[in-house]
Amino acid sequence: MIQMLEETTLPINSVKLLASSRSAGKQLKFKDQTITVEETVPDSFKGVDLALFSAGGGVSKKFAPEAVKRGAVVVDNTSAFRMDPEVPLVVPEVNEKALYAHHGIIANPNCSTIQMVVSLEPIRQKFGLKKVIVSTYQAVSGAGNRALQELRTETQDYLDGKEMHADILPTAGDKKHYPIAFNVLPQIDVFEEDGYSHEEWKMIHETKKIMAGDMNSKAIKVTATCARVPVPVSHSEEVYFEVEDAKNANVAGIQAALRNAPGVVLQDDPDHQIYPMPINAEGSRDTFVGRVRPDQEEDNAYHLWNVSDNLLKGAAWNSVQIAEHLDKLNLLHMQ
Amino acid sequence: MIQMLEETTLPINSVKLLASSRSAGKQLKFKDQTITVEETVPDSFKGVDLALFSAGGGVSKKFAPEAVKRGAVVVDNTSAFRMDPEVPLVVPEVNEKALYAHHGIIANPNCSTIQMVVSLEPIRQKFGLKKVIVSTYQAVSGAGNRALQELRTETQDYLDGKEMHADILPTAGDKKHYPIAFNVLPQIDVFEEDGYSHEEWKMIHETKKIMAGDMNSKAIKVTATCARVPVPVSHSEEVYFEVEDAKNANVAGIQAALRNAPGVVLQDDPDHQIYPMPINAEGSRDTFVGRVRPDQEEDNAYHLWNVSDNLLKGAAWNSVQIAEHLDKLNLLHMQ
Repeated sequence: MIQMLEETTLPINSVKLLASSRSAGKQLKFKDQTITVEETVPDSFKGVDLALFSAGGGVSKKFAPEAVKRGAVVVDNTSAFRMDPEVPLVVPEVNEKALYAHHGIIANPNCSTIQMVVSLEPIRQKFGLKKVIVSTYQAVSGAGNRALQELRTETQDYLDGKEMHADILPTAGDKKHYPIAFNVLPQIDVFEEDGYSHEEWKMIHETKKIMAGDMNSKAIKVTATCARVPVPVSHSEEVYFEVEDAKNANVAGIQAALRNAPGVVLQDDPDHQIYPMPINAEGSRDTFVGRVRPDQEEDNAYHLWNVSDNLLKGAAWNSVQIAEHLDKLNLLHMQ
Repeated sequence: MIQMLEETTLPINSVKLLASSRSAGKQLKFKDQTITVEETVPDSFKGVDLALFSAGGGVSKKFAPEAVKRGAVVVDNTSAFRMDPEVPLVVPEVNEKALYAHHGIIANPNCSTIQMVVSLEPIRQKFGLKKVIVSTYQAVSGAGNRALQELRTETQDYLDGKEMHADILPTAGDKKHYPIAFNVLPQIDVFEEDGYSHEEWKMIHETKKIMAGDMNSKAIKVTATCARVPVPVSHSEEVYFEVEDAKNANVAGIQAALRNAPGVVLQDDPDHQIYPMPINAEGSRDTFVGRVRPDQEEDNAYHLWNVSDNLLKGAAWNSVQIAEHLDKLNLLHMQ
């Protein structure tokens, strides 16, 4: 987040770093300044124009309204407000205009949703979109720094012939823990009563809200399967989709739409083994899309494969990008 | 393969181990015997009742007809004869009866196909099957021992902060090679002209041949996306499927069909975090199935997640199991 703020075009006068009392006093760099982390209290937000929250849903629920009360616009990277009909859920490439309706808080979607809607929006604009079936191959960093360390430790233990020990994944808040090293975990976040994981639920309802304005919209059907793979950074997704305009849609037309789309880099040349991969996406703000091909037995269905850095476009960059768009639209008054 | 033969119920009198001249002279154990590997020549098959081939398509094309000429029944684990309309392509749990039509050669399907059709057949029998959309998370051992070694070396290099070097994956026969460690490769085998990989092509046409009797059958629609993940053994698959009998199908009915199905172990209890994972499937002949849940916006579509040991049910065990069924049906005359 700090790195994205260092690189932003926003006219930043000063930066505050806020955290819990546990982290207060820590010193972090912003450009050539050293900034001391302060404990968050409601009055921390006095005089603040823009507050980026990314410290868990509980913290956002408690402090985001306090920040708004004190005149800040909040971009919240947690799930606290995403389904609030009063709070825009925004991916700038897709629904920038939703920003006009904000009341102080704008929600940043879940990482796996963001890269999917960035890949699908250019197609939706050109050919319409009826249905999406997504299978994810998600990176470990989505579960935080401790999960990343767990992947490293388990991996080394496995190579050394030792037993692997899991404390965090599939999700810190659940009862059982399984190794991610050399494994695939078909669980991200906890399970809902209907057998979907909460991550899958998010992909379904966030996509509907971002692309069709309502978390329960019937305009676009979405279903999802989310799995964690032993990759540190960058989620991959196989996206199967049905277009409205079957007559005019084709692979070349979809590729053309993607080639010209903001935030998208088309990497689609199977003959030369060009396709998106996590190791190439890490560190980039773009969503890489390839393997566009038709379902050979349907006239309106296609596949694509996308990869994006879940920590940048999936989190920090999308948050800062929202702030840039707020500023551009005069919806954020930087003093 | 040797291990599966050690454990088989087939009445084996003697075993020959055949290979190229490069491996001839090597000694391997079968139960308490030490057997010297011999170079394969046409007359190697004199007096042989059952020949299991697993040394590449070229070897099978050259020697399988020679073995048949000398009275052996061949179970071929390569892709050499899979699409030959005269050669049954068999997964015993699904289409055992196809064995009756054999002319000396029976083909063993591709690993990723086998575990999918084992999972789907009980559902097809009960509710019919219209369409399948599969996304795979395939293990490295599917690409052979050298690929497995490559995964280990790359993994250690990554942990040591060294650059990773790839020589084999995504597929030895293609021009470019990319690391598999901490990565996902959306390429298995080479690409066809239509943008599908050959592995995806196999899943589509083998499934049609096994379940509907014809590699181009329109009775079941199939589309596939195959990706390799950094897992040594056991493929995982997200299988999305549409049933014929939407009115009577439901999750409980699908689970009941799977619970009673041969070769299937139902591991489906999300509340207790019970679902199939590669680390639990390695070494088992079964296909583990879980995460059965409906597409919430379709009345005839469901998801399941399956995992199976690609070296056992996906290869060696299915081959030996075919032999056992040939014997049971009196289609193999063990002397």
